[in-house]
Amino acid sequence: MRSRTLAIYPRPDQEFKKRESLDFQLQRSAIYKTRPHGKLIHFYKWLSYFLCGAITGIVCYGWEWLVEEFVKLKWKATQPVLLDDSIGLGYLVYIGISILFGAAASLLTLYLEPLAAGGGTTEMMGYFNGVNYPGVFSVKTLIVKIFGLMFAIAAGLCIGKEGVLAHIGSIIGYLLIYAPFGFMKYFRNNEDKRDMAAAGTAAGVAAAFGSPIGGTMFAYEVAAPTVFWSFELTWVLFFTSAVSCFFVNILASLVEGKGFGEITNSGVIKFGSYINDKYQLYDLISFGIMGVIGGVLGAIFCFVNYTMGKLRKKYLTSNLRKFGETMFYVIVTGTLMYFAPLLVQDECYDVDVTNPTSEDYNEISKKFQRYLCPDGKYSPLGTALFNPLGSVFKIFMNGDTQFGFGSLALYLIIWYPMTIFSYGTNIPAGLFVSGILIGCGYGRLFGLFVSSYITSNVKPSSYAVVGAASILSGYARHTFSLAIIMMESTENIDLFIPIVFAIMVGYVVGGVFQKSIYINAVRFKNIPFLIETIPQGSSHIRAEDMMKAPVSMFHFKAPVKEVAEVLSKTSYNGFPVINTAKKLIGIISRDYLMVLLKNKVFAGEFRKDDYSNFNSSQRHSLNSEYVKEKKTLSRQTLDGLDKDSRKKLILSHIDNEEDEDVDIDLHDIKDSLPVTWEDFNHKFNDAPPSFNEVKDVCDQNMDKKMDLRCYMEHSPHFVQPQDSAQKVLDVFRLHHLRYLPVVDKDQVIGIITRQDLFTYMSII
Amino acid sequence: MRSRTLAIYPRPDQEFKKRESLDFQLQRSAIYKTRPHGKLIHFYKWLSYFLCGAITGIVCYGWEWLVEEFVKLKWKATQPVLLDDSIGLGYLVYIGISILFGAAASLLTLYLEPLAAGGGTTEMMGYFNGVNYPGVFSVKTLIVKIFGLMFAIAAGLCIGKEGVLAHIGSIIGYLLIYAPFGFMKYFRNNEDKRDMAAAGTAAGVAAAFGSPIGGTMFAYEVAAPTVFWSFELTWVLFFTSAVSCFFVNILASLVEGKGFGEITNSGVIKFGSYINDKYQLYDLISFGIMGVIGGVLGAIFCFVNYTMGKLRKKYLTSNLRKFGETMFYVIVTGTLMYFAPLLVQDECYDVDVTNPTSEDYNEISKKFQRYLCPDGKYSPLGTALFNPLGSVFKIFMNGDTQFGFGSLALYLIIWYPMTIFSYGTNIPAGLFVSGILIGCGYGRLFGLFVSSYITSNVKPSSYAVVGAASILSGYARHTFSLAIIMMESTENIDLFIPIVFAIMVGYVVGGVFQKSIYINAVRFKNIPFLIETIPQGSSHIRAEDMMKAPVSMFHFKAPVKEVAEVLSKTSYNGFPVINTAKKLIGIISRDYLMVLLKNKVFAGEFRKDDYSNFNSSQRHSLNSEYVKEKKTLSRQTLDGLDKDSRKKLILSHIDNEEDEDVDIDLHDIKDSLPVTWEDFNHKFNDAPPSFNEVKDVCDQNMDKKMDLRCYMEHSPHFVQPQDSAQKVLDVFRLHHLRYLPVVDKDQVIGIITRQDLFTYMSII
Repeated sequence: MRSRTLAIYPRPDQEFKKRESLDFQLQRSAIYKTRPHGKLIHFYKWLSYFLCGAITGIVCYGWEWLVEEFVKLKWKATQPVLLDDSIGLGYLVYIGISILFGAAASLLTLYLEPLAAGGGTTEMMGYFNGVNYPGVFSVKTLIVKIFGLMFAIAAGLCIGKEGVLAHIGSIIGYLLIYAPFGFMKYFRNNEDKRDMAAAGTAAGVAAAFGSPIGGTMFAYEVAAPTVFWSFELTWVLFFTSAVSCFFVNILASLVEGKGFGEITNSGVIKFGSYINDKYQLYDLISFGIMGVIGGVLGAIFCFVNYTMGKLRKKYLTSNLRKFGETMFYVIVTGTLMYFAPLLVQDECYDVDVTNPTSEDYNEISKKFQRYLCPDGKYSPLGTALFNPLGSVFKIFMNGDTQFGFGSLALYLIIWYPMTIFSYGTNIPAGLFVSGILIGCGYGRLFGLFVSSYITSNVKPSSYAVVGAASILSGYARHTFSLAIIMMESTENIDLFIPIVFAIMVGYVVGGVFQKSIYINAVRFKNIPFLIETIPQGSSHIRAEDMMKAPVSMFHFKAPVKEVAEVLSKTSYNGFPVINTAKKLIGIISRDYLMVLLKNKVFAGEFRKDDYSNFNSSQRHSLNSEYVKEKKTLSRQTLDGLDKDSRKKLILSHIDNEEDEDVDIDLHDIKDSLPVTWEDFNHKFNDAPPSFNEVKDVCDQNMDKKMDLRCYMEHSPHFVQPQDSAQKVLDVFRLHHLRYLPVVDKDQVIGIITRQDLFTYMSII
Repeated sequence: MRSRTLAIYPRPDQEFKKRESLDFQLQRSAIYKTRPHGKLIHFYKWLSYFLCGAITGIVCYGWEWLVEEFVKLKWKATQPVLLDDSIGLGYLVYIGISILFGAAASLLTLYLEPLAAGGGTTEMMGYFNGVNYPGVFSVKTLIVKIFGLMFAIAAGLCIGKEGVLAHIGSIIGYLLIYAPFGFMKYFRNNEDKRDMAAAGTAAGVAAAFGSPIGGTMFAYEVAAPTVFWSFELTWVLFFTSAVSCFFVNILASLVEGKGFGEITNSGVIKFGSYINDKYQLYDLISFGIMGVIGGVLGAIFCFVNYTMGKLRKKYLTSNLRKFGETMFYVIVTGTLMYFAPLLVQDECYDVDVTNPTSEDYNEISKKFQRYLCPDGKYSPLGTALFNPLGSVFKIFMNGDTQFGFGSLALYLIIWYPMTIFSYGTNIPAGLFVSGILIGCGYGRLFGLFVSSYITSNVKPSSYAVVGAASILSGYARHTFSLAIIMMESTENIDLFIPIVFAIMVGYVVGGVFQKSIYINAVRFKNIPFLIETIPQGSSHIRAEDMMKAPVSMFHFKAPVKEVAEVLSKTSYNGFPVINTAKKLIGIISRDYLMVLLKNKVFAGEFRKDDYSNFNSSQRHSLNSEYVKEKKTLSRQTLDGLDKDSRKKLILSHIDNEEDEDVDIDLHDIKDSLPVTWEDFNHKFNDAPPSFNEVKDVCDQNMDKKMDLRCYMEHSPHFVQPQDSAQKVLDVFRLHHLRYLPVVDKDQVIGIITRQDLFTYMSII
C-alpha cells in the first residue's frame, strides 16, 4: 500500500504554497548583539518556563477532573432509570445526554474555530518545522480545544485526549509570551515562542501521563527532523514537564482529600501500581505475536482513517453535513455502548471486597458498574464502557478484575471501528488514549485466550499493557517517547523489556504496510515539511534549478524610495544586502525594514556629536598574509581609548560609506542609536506586517537613505548555482533558514525560499 | 573560583595541537552514492547493534560478578582471623590482599596501557566531538580497563565504575566493527564507528544501572555539543541499551539460580524495591538544603581534584612515583577502612530476621558483617565498608537497616576525601558510583539529623537517594541522564520530584563555584572541543584571520606528479579541487587520494567501450532564466535511452574535460569503474596513511593524470574571508567538517582547519 513510485518533482501547485514560513532563527546582526542578556534574563527565562509548566499542569488537571465528573454524572443519571424503570427509558436518558454534549462539542468547533478539530499534532509538527499557522496558537483555539474535547468525551465518543492536551500545553506556552508581565518582552520573538510552545507540549503530555521524561521525548519526536533541538532545550523541557507534574500532583492530593503536601508524581492518567506481574522468557513469543497483530491493526487504522479523510474532504462541504457526521457518530456510539452489555448479560461477577487481595482492588471496585447485574455483582463490559477513560486502564490492567471473552470482544468491536471513524470528524480529538484502551482490551483478550487454551501460567491482565504498546506503536510510531511514557505510567521497570519488544515488532510490522497516522496527516494536510534527505527523484536538481530570479535586493545604504517601492510591490520576506561592488554582505527581513522605517532610522541621524575622521590601525591577523591594511576597526585600537573617543570612533566608522563589512560591537553606542534591540523583538502577532503602517513615514522621507549595516544579518549563508539540492537542504535545515541567496562570481543571481525547496521534496 | 577574565585568543601552542581530527562525515561524492544500501544493509546494521548490546551486557555482567566475588572473598578471609585471632593479624590479611590487588591494577595500567587510567569519559567526549584518539579504543585499553578496574576495586580503593563500564562498552562497539564478519565491511568508516561507539557507551551504562533510557541519555550528554545526533540514532542506542539490559537480566537469573527465563530488567547496580517511601511537601525544604550542600561538596570535589591533577602532572613523572602514589592510597584506604569500625565499636544492632518487616530485608541481612560485634548482631560501618559497592546502596536505602551518627560520619570521612584523591591516580576509575555512595551516606546522615532533632516523621533511609542525586549533580552535572538513571534505578516514580529538585539545586549551586569535573578534565587534558558559541573575546575575528594560506589544491584532472609531491611533502588531510577557472568545485581527502593511487585510478582508464561524443539537451529548470543550455546531462535525457547508450553517454560525459560540475548517477557504470565504494570504506585503523604505501605506484605513473570528479566531495561548504567566526563555527559544527576552504571572488584563498578554529575558542 505504501507508495513506492518515484514522485515527479517539482510538485504541482498545492495547498502548502499558501503557507508562510517562520523566521525561527533571529537575525544575527550587530544590533542583535546588544540584546539584554546575563543572569537576570536567564532567571526570567526559567521563570517563564516555570509558569508554563505550572499553568499547563493546573489546566490539564482541572480539565481532566471536569471530564471525569461529566462522564460519571451521565451514568449516574442513567443507571437508576435502567434498573428501576425500563431499558428503553434508560436509553433515552443516556442518548439524550450524549446528544447534548455532542452537539455542544461540534457546534463550538464549527462556529468558534474549525481549525481546532483533530489532534493538533500535525500542526505542531509543521510549526516546529518552521511553518506559520496563524490560528493554531490562539485563544479561540485554546477554548475550543479545552471545551470541545471535554464535551466530545462526555458525549461518549471513542476518542483520546493526549494529543489535545499536548496542543493545549503548547498554546499555553505560546500565549504566555504575550502575558502582561514586563519581563516577557525579552522573549517575544519566534525563536523563544517556539521553545515555549515545545515546553508546553512536553508539559501537557507530562501532565496527562505523569511522565516528565516521556513528555520531553514526545516533544522531541514531534519536532524531530528539525535541529533547533539543543541540549539545553531538552533540559528546559524536562524542567517544565517536572513542574507540570508537580502541580498535577499537588492538586490531585487536594482533591482526593489527602491534604496539601502529599508528593506523589501521578499524572492525570496513571496505570500505577495496578500492575505487578513478572514475565517469563517464553512470554516473549506471545508478545511477538501481539506485536505483529498490533502492527497490522495499526496499519488498517491508518489506511481507513486516511481514506475517510479523503472522502470527508470531498463530501462534507457544508457545516450542516459536518455537524451531521459528528452527531451520527455520537448516536451510533451511544447506542452501541448502551445496548452492548445486554448481549453479555450473563457475564456478572462478584464484587467481593471482603477478601482483600490487594489495596488497589478496593479502590477499583468502587468504579464497578452493575448495568443489569444483581446487587453485589458487576458487569465487566458495563464497567469498561461507562467509566472515565483513565479508570478503564486500571480496570483492564488489574489482575483481580474479571472479563469474559464476550465482554472483551464486544468492547473491541465498538471501540476499534468507532475510534477510526471518530478521529477526523469535526471535533478536537486525540488518539493515544483510545489506542491504549483498544490495546488493553485486545491484550487482555489475547491473554485470556492463551491462559484458557495454551497455558494457565499466564495472567490475562498482564498482557493488557503489552497490547496497548503494540497497538500504539502500530499506528503512531512515536516509539521512543511511547516506550518511556509506558514505562513511567506503569511505574514498573520489569515490564520494560516486553513493552519495548512489542513496540519494536509493532513498529516494523506497521511500517511494512502504512506510514504512521501522523505522517499520513501531514501529507493529507499538505504541511510543508523539510526532511533530512532529498528524495532520489530530485537528487540531480541543483540550486540554480530551484532559485527564483530576479531578486529584489538593496545596497547597504538603501534609498527610502527604493525600499518603499519594493516593500509595497512585492511580498518577499527577505532581501539580500549588497555593497557597491554588488557583492552579498548581508540579508535583511521585511520585518526589520518595517521596524527601521517605523522608527525613522535614517542614515547619519543617530549622530549626536561631531567627530573627526579617524584612521584605524592594522587588523590583527595570525595565520595569513592575505589580510592587508584595511579601514576597519580592531579591538586593539578600541581598547586603548577612553569611552568618549571610542564612541566617536565607532560612530565615524559606522557612517563610513566605503566599509561594507561592519561587524562591530554596538554596546558602546547603544544609547546613540535611534532604535533598540527590543524594537525588533516586540512582535505581537505572526501575520506579515502591512506596508500601510509605514506608508506615511516613507512618503515624508523619500529623499533619505537607510543604513542597513547594523541591522542586517551579516555573514549570511548562501550557495553556488551548481550546488546540489542536498547541500541546499542541509544548509536550510541546519541553519533554520527561510531564504537562501544563490551567488555566482560574487553576484546574487537568485534566491531559494523554503517553499521552493519543498517543491522538490516528497512529503516524507 | 570560576575564571571570568577574557582569555586571550589565539591561544598559544598547546597539547591539543598534536591531536588529529576525524572525518566524521563521509565524503558525499558520486562514488558515495553507489554504496550498497537497502533492506539487507539495514538488517546488518541492526544486527551489529544487537551484537554490540549483547556483548556489552554479557561483559559487564561477568565483570561485575567477578568483582563482587573478589570483594566478598577478601572479607571472608579477614573476618575469621579478626574474630578468632587478633585485630593485628586480621589487618595483615586485609591489607596484604589489598596490596596484591592494588599492585596488580597499577602495574597493569602503567605497563600495558597508561592511556587507560581514569574514567575515559573525557576521551569519549573528545572522540564524539571529532578528535582522533588512537589508543583510546584499542584491545589493550579494553583489557586494562576490564582487569585494572576489577583489581583496583578489589583492592578497596574508593572509586566507582560506571564511566569505565561506559568506556568498555564503547570500545566493544568500536572494535566490533573489525570483527571478522563479512557484513561488517559496510560499516568500517568513521561515521559508523562513531555510532557504534556511542551505542556501546549507552549499553555499558544501561547494563551498569539497568537503565536503558538513562544509558541512551548518558551517551547523548557525553556527545552533547555535536549535532551528529539524529533521531534515528537515539532509537538505535535505545535498542542497543535494551538488548544489553536483557542479557544482563538473563545472566542474573541464571546466576541467582532462578533458571533461564525470568525476565526482570535488573542492571548490575540496582536500588530496586528497597525504597518505598513517600514524601511530604515540607520535605522539599530539606531536599533544597541537601541540594545546596551537595552542590558545595561537588564543587570542592572538582576544585581539589583539578588541583591534584596539576600537581600530579608536575611531580609524578616516573612510573615508580606513579606506582607509589597508587599504592599509598591503597594502604591508607585499607588501613582507614579496617580500623574505622573500632571507633564505633558500640554500634551493634540486632540482625533480627524473625520479624519479617519486608522480604528485601531478609536478602539484605545476608550481607551484614559482624566485625567485632557479638553473634546475631551486625556492625553498620563494617557492613557499609566491606561489602561490594552494589550491595551497599541497598543497605543505605533500606528503611529497616540501622545506622548511627558515628558510623555514617566515619563512612563519609573515609569515602569523600579518598574518592577525590583516588580518582586521577594511575588506574582506571569511575566517579558515578562513588558519588552515589557518598551521597547515600550523606543523605542518610542528614535524614538522621532531621529525624533526631527536628521531626520524627522522617525516615533517614528515604533521604539517602536524594543525597546521592544532589552530590552527583554537584560535580558531574550530567543532569538529564542522571535524573533518568536515578528514576530507573529506584524503580519508584514517586521519588522523581524530590530527585529532580535536588539535582537542579545541586546543579545550580555547583555551577556557581566550579565547572563540572568532566569539563575540568577536558580543559586539563587539552581536548579540542567545539562548543556552540564563539567566546566574546574572539567574536570580532573573521574567517580571513583564522585561515592558513597558501593552500595546496588540485585541478580536477590532477597530474600524478603533482599529487605525489603534495602528499609526500605536506601533512594536510584535505585538498580543495578546482576547475580550469580556479573555481572551487570540490574537496578531496588524503585518504581518498591514497585509495585512488593504490588502485591506479587514472583518467580515462575505466573506459571499456568506444563511444561517440553526445551533446545533451537542455537542462530542466523551473524557476529561473539563469540556466542556459549547458553541456551537462539531465535525467530526462538519460531516461529516454536504453542501458548501453546510457552507459556510453555517461562515460563520455565523465571524461569530458570541459565540464566541471559532475554530479551524476554512477550506478549505471558502477562495473566499469576501477574502484568501488568499498575500497574507500575499508579503513582498518585511524592512523593517517603513510605516503610510502603508494610511492611505487606514483613513481611508475608520473606522467598520468587522475580524474577526481567522481571521488571528491562536490558542493563543498566554504566561507568568505569577511565571514564571522560564529558563522565559521556553525558551519563546522553543523556539517561536521574537518576543513573549510575560504573563497574570495571564486578563488580559494585559504583553508581553516578544526584546529585553527579551536585556537580561537575557550575550552568551555
